[in-house]
Parts: sequence; structure tokens; C-alpha cells
Amino acid sequence: MKVDGKHYRTIWPSKTGQTVEIIDQTRLPFEFKIVELANLDDAVNAIADMLVRGAPLIGATTAWGIWLAMLADGSDTSLKQALDKLRNARPTAVNLSWALAQMSTALKPLKPEDRSAAAYARALEITENDVILCSSIGDHGSQLISDTHAAKGNDEPINILTHCNAGWLATVDWGTALAPIYKAHDAGIPVHVWVDETRPRSQGNFLTAWELQHHGVPNTVIVDNAGGHLMQNGEVDMCIVGTDRTTASGDVCNKIGTYLKALAAHDNNIPFYVAAPSPSIDWTISDGLAEITIEQRDHREISHIAGKLNNDSLATVQVVPDNCSTRNDAFDVTPARFISGIITERGICAANQRALSTMFPEHA
Amino acid sequence: MKVDGKHYRTIWPSKTGQTVEIIDQTRLPFEFKIVELANLDDAVNAIADMLVRGAPLIGATTAWGIWLAMLADGSDTSLKQALDKLRNARPTAVNLSWALAQMSTALKPLKPEDRSAAAYARALEITENDVILCSSIGDHGSQLISDTHAAKGNDEPINILTHCNAGWLATVDWGTALAPIYKAHDAGIPVHVWVDETRPRSQGNFLTAWELQHHGVPNTVIVDNAGGHLMQNGEVDMCIVGTDRTTASGDVCNKIGTYLKALAAHDNNIPFYVAAPSPSIDWTISDGLAEITIEQRDHREISHIAGKLNNDSLATVQVVPDNCSTRNDAFDVTPARFISGIITERGICAANQRALSTMFPEHA
Repeated sequence: MKVDGKHYRTIWPSKTGQTVEIIDQTRLPFEFKIVELANLDDAVNAIADMLVRGAPLIGATTAWGIWLAMLADGSDTSLKQALDKLRNARPTAVNLSWALAQMSTALKPLKPEDRSAAAYARALEITENDVILCSSIGDHGSQLISDTHAAKGNDEPINILTHCNAGWLATVDWGTALAPIYKAHDAGIPVHVWVDETRPRSQGNFLTAWELQHHGVPNTVIVDNAGGHLMQNGEVDMCIVGTDRTTASGDVCNKIGTYLKALAAHDNNIPFYVAAPSPSIDWTISDGLAEITIEQRDHREISHIAGKLNNDSLATVQVVPDNCSTRNDAFDVTPARFISGIITERGICAANQRALSTMFPEHA
Repeated sequence: MKVDGKHYRTIWPSKTGQTVEIIDQTRLPFEFKIVELANLDDAVNAIADMLVRGAPLIGATTAWGIWLAMLADGSDTSLKQALDKLRNARPTAVNLSWALAQMSTALKPLKPEDRSAAAYARALEITENDVILCSSIGDHGSQLISDTHAAKGNDEPINILTHCNAGWLATVDWGTALAPIYKAHDAGIPVHVWVDETRPRSQGNFLTAWELQHHGVPNTVIVDNAGGHLMQNGEVDMCIVGTDRTTASGDVCNKIGTYLKALAAHDNNIPFYVAAPSPSIDWTISDGLAEITIEQRDHREISHIAGKLNNDSLATVQVVPDNCSTRNDAFDVTPARFISGIITERGICAANQRALSTMFPEHA
């Protein structure tokens, strides 16, 4: 999407044909910096240090990392080392393992001298496929926004609440939950986004507000406590959120706090949509609350917050008493009964087993 | 309540008989500092600069401020000036106006030379009455905790979730929502408190966690997004929150985000109690959503967060992109249908017009 008028993706091969470029997301929203990945280690570090984040973008960076390794040395030893190093960059990232398997399958049968070109082709394909997938979600979801606009029958903006960051910064382009919003905005439908701060990690403040602002989509940051009140007050037309993992029955595991917003939407008869690319659907499980183990993350994400001092330098401040106990569950599960629809790349379906398996019969 | 073993209130006349002492709450949780109020202006500034906050404590500080003025000069001019200065310290504080009316009624008929002693007596009475009121709420509410403990039939702690700060720091002692918790803890019932961070202003982190920790009550800070997930997970036995304004029908206007926790408690069959001293009940209104106008506060409460740098100095960091729009509604309304009971100084009653007017027939 656009940054101050110029189109960017989150990752792309550089003009030299020898390196890859990314946006350093650890510096957002305070600095927009392009970083060059010149070799395998740069790619590993970009993933490990979270210069890139978001499952689809991690997958793409993994593929490009293998290309950088093959460009330097296409040998079996080099390929094995690259697969191992990337695998350990962020051990729990599903798309990372997926991309490694894709690259390994494509490259292992080849002669060393053919691997660089093949790696480039496969990395490009993975990247372009992610753009196509997100763009399709955007097309289907923007129809919902367009319909809501038509039903309202005036030129007031459609107010959409989102949680966390499921925008283009988490993917290669477009995003998942934000793709419908970008498509609607680009088509001239007036939209306004309520951006949940999304503690801990503040991805709403740091990423969602930044990317919407720079693409020119009107948005307002609110604290995570505020969405229910805005819904009671008639100031939210719909919610669209992303998903980290979706069950075959339509339960959605997403950033902690998603469930609270779904409850409020339900209580106020506001549609609550989940943008779910089909790779996020885990067809092996059907009860999100019983079957998904929620990751508990570091104390420091609760106890400290990063930001900008008034001298423009960045700093981290402690925001709890000394020796304070904290608990940091990263995700929660929103039961399917609170979800109005799931926006996939093939279309929108109800959040239940039958609808999902009708949309994806190959998994039924 | 206790701070590291020693009992404190939030305000008290000093041993010299010439000044008042308070805890400077702007420095919490990073520094515990007692400040002396030596004259009227000190009291005005303590209220205006939020060294004291919380409706009951503002009321008590107002009364002591009048005493300090009368101690220096008991004349009509001095009394009028003191009433005017305090009235403007925080224009919207209901308890401030109430305390001014009390002091004015008590002092105006008196001769200047009698006003100092009378002001002292009335300020002390207002202070002690607040302690009695909160203690009574604590007695009634702790019975709920005790009953829950008995029903559980084991020695696992009773897990109580609270939002914002309705503790002793907001009153003279005991608090409202936290009074039942302190009473239960002091009686040997094992309790553990989930403390919502409570953005913006972070009163959960800065005040509730601090006061519970220093009194010795086990507690864990969580982000505002986490409570619903903990409730789904069976890790919350009950919720107790405070109230800024309660309607005659039992709707509760409290810190933004209270409504979301009430929805989650309802969805998980967890009791949701509101500790409401009767002065918080506005008998003139019965529909909280329709009749209460929600105050919108400063952008900076959303855009900036204060905390401690790793060199132990305090700093404020910007946590949103430059030129970011924000919206800061201070309160929300929890409809009575989500409230299991209202804990008043006279006992616990259902959140409806009939039950409340039976408990307080003088307002029926």
C-alpha cells in the first residue's frame, strides 16, 4: 500500500538483483526505514529481531532468505545450513516452517548451479500468491462495506473497528482485515477506522494507525477499553479483525481482547467479521476453547512500554510497580457463535463447520 | 490500609495540629511520599494537580482545606475566598461541591473566632464518616467472598477481577470495590486479585496493584484485553468494580471498559458486583445510556504514557504515530441487566429500581 503517496510492499527484491529490501518494522511508527538484506544471516536476523513480523510476511522473508543463501552458494551444505538457520529464527512461526518445506521441495532435487534461479522464482511466486490471496479477501470484504454504505443511504463514513494489526505490514501487501478497508477506500467509499491500541505490544497504535494514516484512510486510535462504549453509542457499523488460527468449526484464535469486542458487537447487533486466509484454518480441530493452548509471553510486554521521548529519542518505560506480578496470555478464542461471517479468499461464509467445508470442499 | 506494615490513611491532620498530611498520589507507584498541606493554597493545588484524587478523598481534602483557611483567618472574606478557590480546583467533582456546601452550612452562621474549631470538627466528621461507609461496604462484600470460598470447599484463592482504582487511595481508607477484598484478606480468606491495567491513565497498574501489594494482598496485573479470556478459562470467581455514578435503576457509569468486563462475566456465568456508596447513586435518573453524558478527556492521555526509565527517573513517552487522531471517552455505562448485585453500605441489593428504593426508602 502507499506510504506518503508512493506504493510499497513489505518485502521486495532490490534493483541490483543481489539483495532483498524490507521495511524495518521495529522502528515504526516513529521512523520509516528501508533495510537491505544482503545474505542469509541478514534474513535470519530480520525474522528473529522482528524487523519483519506477521505470519505471511515471515513466510515470504523465509523464502527470500533461502534465495540469498543459494545466490552465495548453491551447494547441499549451504542449503541444509540455510534451512536450519531459518528454522531456528522463530521456532513457533507456522508460515516459516511452511515456506521452508516449499523451498526445500523445490530446490533439493536440483543441481547446485540451478538452485539460485529456482529459489528466486519460488520466492517470487510465494510473494505474489500472498498478494493475490489478500487482494481477494479485500475484494470480498469491500463488498460488505459497500453494501453497508448503500444501506445507510448517505455519505457518512462507514465506521469499522479493528483490533491488533492485520494490515499490509503483516503480509506482503493489502493485509487481511484491512484489505477490505483499503479496497473500499480506494474505490471512493467513505470509511473511518477505530483502531484499538492493542496492549500488550500496541500493534494498533504502532502499526495499524501508522499504515492507515500513510495510505490516507481516516482513523482514530482508541484504548482497548473503549470499543464497547462506541458500539453502545451507535458509532461502529462493523468490526473486522484478523485471525491467528481458525478452527474447522469457525472458532477464531486471535490477539487477546478480540473476544471482548465480539461480545460487545453481539450485544449491540453489530456485524463482527473475521478475515481468514485459508492457510489460517486448522482443519484438524473444531473446539477452539478446548483444543487451542494459549501461549503465555514475556512479563516485560506488560510491565514496559516503548515510545518516543519529547527529545525524539526512543525509550522504554516501566509502567507497573516494582516487583509486580503480571500474566501475559497472547491470544484468546472467540467462539463461532459471536462471528457474523468469515471473509476468505474464496468468498464470505458463515462461521460453522458446514459453511467452511462447503467453501473448501477439499478439506471436508 | 497498610504500606509495608504501617497503617496509613490518604489524609490526616498532622501532629502539630496546624497542618494536614496526604500521600502524593502523582508519584505512585514509583515513590511513596507524604506531603504536608500548610494552607488553603496547598489544599487547592493538591486537588487541582491530582496529588489527591477519587471522589471521597477530594471531598475530605476540600473540608480540610476550609479548615486550613479558617485556621489562618476566620473572617467572612477568608471563608468566601476559600469556598471560591476550592470550587475552581476541579470544577466537575461532585464530592467537592458537596463538601463545600457542608462546610459552608456549618461555618457561615458562626462567629469568625469559632470557625476554626468548628471546621476541624466537621472535616474530621466527614473523614470518619467516609471510613465508616467504606468499612460497611467491606463488611457486606466480604461476606460474598467468604460464601464463595465456602462453596468452593478448598483452600484455593478466590480470584477476583477489578477494573480501575476503587481502593483506599480513592477514599480515606478501605476503598469501595477493594474494601471487601481487604476485609476478606484480613480475615484470613485466601484471595487473589486480577488487576486490569486500565488504560488510559493506568490506575490499575499505578494505584490498585501498588496498594494491594503494599497491604500484602496477592495480585496480578493484566492488560485490559485479558479479562474475558481468563473468565472463559475458569480463572475468575467474581468481579467487583466501583462506580462513578449509579442510576436509580442500577445502571452503572464507571471507568471506560467496565462494560466489556460485565459482558464477559455474563457470558461465563461469573458474578459481577458493583460497590456503590449511596452518595454515588443519582436518584434523579433511571436510564444510564440515555441520560448520562460521557466526558471526553484530553488526547494526551491516549497518546502518551508515563513510567520509569531504567535509570529510575520518570519520563513520559509518546505511544502513537505523530499527528495521530485519538478519542478519549472517560466512562462507559454498564446496563443493570449485567450486574449481579450492588454492594452498598446498608447491604447488597439487586441492580433494579425496586431493590434500590427498598434499600434506601428515603429516596423512593
